[in-house]
Amino acid sequence: MAVRLPVEELQRFVTEVFLRTGLSEEDAAISAEILVAADVRGFDSHGVARLDYYVRRIEAGAVNLRPRFHAVAETPATIAFDADNGMGFPSAYRAMRRCIEKAQESGLCLATVRRSNHYGIAGYYATMALEVPGMIGVSMTNATPLVVPPHARDAYLSTAPIAFAIPAGKERPLVFDGATSTVAWGKIEIARRNRQPIPLGWALDAEGRPTTDPFAARFLTPLGAFPELRSHKGYALALLVEVLCGQLAGGVWAKYVGGSRSETIGPSNTGHAFMAIRIDAFRPLEEFLADMDDMLGELRRARPTDGAERVLVPGDLEAETEAERRANGIPVHPEVLATLREIATRYGVPLPA
Amino acid sequence: MAVRLPVEELQRFVTEVFLRTGLSEEDAAISAEILVAADVRGFDSHGVARLDYYVRRIEAGAVNLRPRFHAVAETPATIAFDADNGMGFPSAYRAMRRCIEKAQESGLCLATVRRSNHYGIAGYYATMALEVPGMIGVSMTNATPLVVPPHARDAYLSTAPIAFAIPAGKERPLVFDGATSTVAWGKIEIARRNRQPIPLGWALDAEGRPTTDPFAARFLTPLGAFPELRSHKGYALALLVEVLCGQLAGGVWAKYVGGSRSETIGPSNTGHAFMAIRIDAFRPLEEFLADMDDMLGELRRARPTDGAERVLVPGDLEAETEAERRANGIPVHPEVLATLREIATRYGVPLPA
Repeated sequence: MAVRLPVEELQRFVTEVFLRTGLSEEDAAISAEILVAADVRGFDSHGVARLDYYVRRIEAGAVNLRPRFHAVAETPATIAFDADNGMGFPSAYRAMRRCIEKAQESGLCLATVRRSNHYGIAGYYATMALEVPGMIGVSMTNATPLVVPPHARDAYLSTAPIAFAIPAGKERPLVFDGATSTVAWGKIEIARRNRQPIPLGWALDAEGRPTTDPFAARFLTPLGAFPELRSHKGYALALLVEVLCGQLAGGVWAKYVGGSRSETIGPSNTGHAFMAIRIDAFRPLEEFLADMDDMLGELRRARPTDGAERVLVPGDLEAETEAERRANGIPVHPEVLATLREIATRYGVPLPA
Repeated sequence: MAVRLPVEELQRFVTEVFLRTGLSEEDAAISAEILVAADVRGFDSHGVARLDYYVRRIEAGAVNLRPRFHAVAETPATIAFDADNGMGFPSAYRAMRRCIEKAQESGLCLATVRRSNHYGIAGYYATMALEVPGMIGVSMTNATPLVVPPHARDAYLSTAPIAFAIPAGKERPLVFDGATSTVAWGKIEIARRNRQPIPLGWALDAEGRPTTDPFAARFLTPLGAFPELRSHKGYALALLVEVLCGQLAGGVWAKYVGGSRSETIGPSNTGHAFMAIRIDAFRPLEEFLADMDDMLGELRRARPTDGAERVLVPGDLEAETEAERRANGIPVHPEVLATLREIATRYGVPLPA
């Protein structure tokens, strides 16, 4: 049912659309690369399905197309950036690039970004660290309020995703990219597109009651889903992400973040935080990589439960999806394809399908 | 039913016992302070209920009573320690103390500790950062394997707790201390002592099936509890903690950690990781504290769901428990009191009850 579009052609299409909305060449290319990377890795919720969202915010004048991205505070191991309400993708990309450089010099760096916008998948920036030998990468962001604290009625926190990428030697690296809520809002969007019910515990309706109807879902639960299953832990992790991306970065916290998935046309005030750790500041890199291989290999060869095929390491499914989609193209849901066609017509950019 | 023992008297008792087992005066005092701090904050699972465990390991010669705690690698923002198989409490205490000092100088520090032992509650070390103005503290440890990855049959990971402490201005600070498993093993121990069933999703029996019987429980689930509720996220967070405390620290990972809650008499090879972040490296401290007050105040005043009394911020219950117990003493379960009496008799140290 879904049409398959080759990765490179989709990237070219998105780049061209971003260029015509007024982004600089470099920002358009970076934004397209990261947006399509979501589809490449299988995060269908965060890829071209949201191109329309980003384009509409640019059209509404909510994003600064010529921002002055700059550092407002810096030490050898820390740096705080102000994105000047530029697009989230290039702002986050530049922050993580600099964070990695600083960790190469200092062994460790924590970077924050204030006054940014939605940056796509958290994991993209974490995996940038894997391009440098011996580097661990961490990436976090806040977003609009969607998550209800345990025993509360209203949404105060964002899905506050956290991603990390840790290299191994011969084994595939350990890569995690996930919301600190039970699921990301994109999973509700996918269930809606597919007209499928959602498991109890993922979402709450407008009255704050658990629901299995994706169309009734208004809010999300923190990881743990129910107080009895310790949703206060997901809540706490979301707060940690909030503080690093909000209060520490010098921006706002989730309750006051705007712009995402809403018609708000002002700056979103999204904040990010990144960390890079140079492994050989702690121990010889080869020893670390060999120890990672031991652990990841043991986990991948672990005995599965009855009915399960195998035990996975975080990132395995995404890496397999990436290999398959780079070979066969990205499956685009008919509803998503319709919005891409509409954008293609509006901007006069041919869609490769 | 539980006898109440004054905090200071319990600390004096534990200090004296540790002294007689052969710890140095300083190590005995630090160990007693941190062990009893668990009871003070309401982590009954991690306090004097486990004094017998620590004492038995010392008696068995499993712990080095005169360790050479030393740094094996250091940069301005990083430090890797070797605890030389000393007691976990003083090793972790010294590592966090140095981590905070380094962050005062460099703005940020990540410290690892290899070849240590069980360090009690993770939160103690995180909250050490609150004694310094404008410092955020993070603490993590690995431990013996108890947690089963999603779709696996066997335990590979530890409960891999993570704790953090973030200061506020007028509001009480934000303090979290929790395992990345649904619950810590101590919660199973408490259910056993009280002969109470546990919620489905906390634990698995010897066959890997979810169980509500605390006596049948053998393994724990990662936070999320069930694959459908995204237990792969708790699994991933546990792996992040493992890598920082194991592979990065230069020790072993959970599957090979010994000593805790088992009769193993050798070194446990436990690893820890600590982080300290100096807030004013990123933005003026007063602004940060005011923003924290805004968020924590809003959360504490949030409208609760029907049936709930109020919305909590992580650390609220522990702070209230601490105030109450410092005033009225620590309630000690009869089974725990019996082991303390036995230790009191064996070491000739009077127990204040």
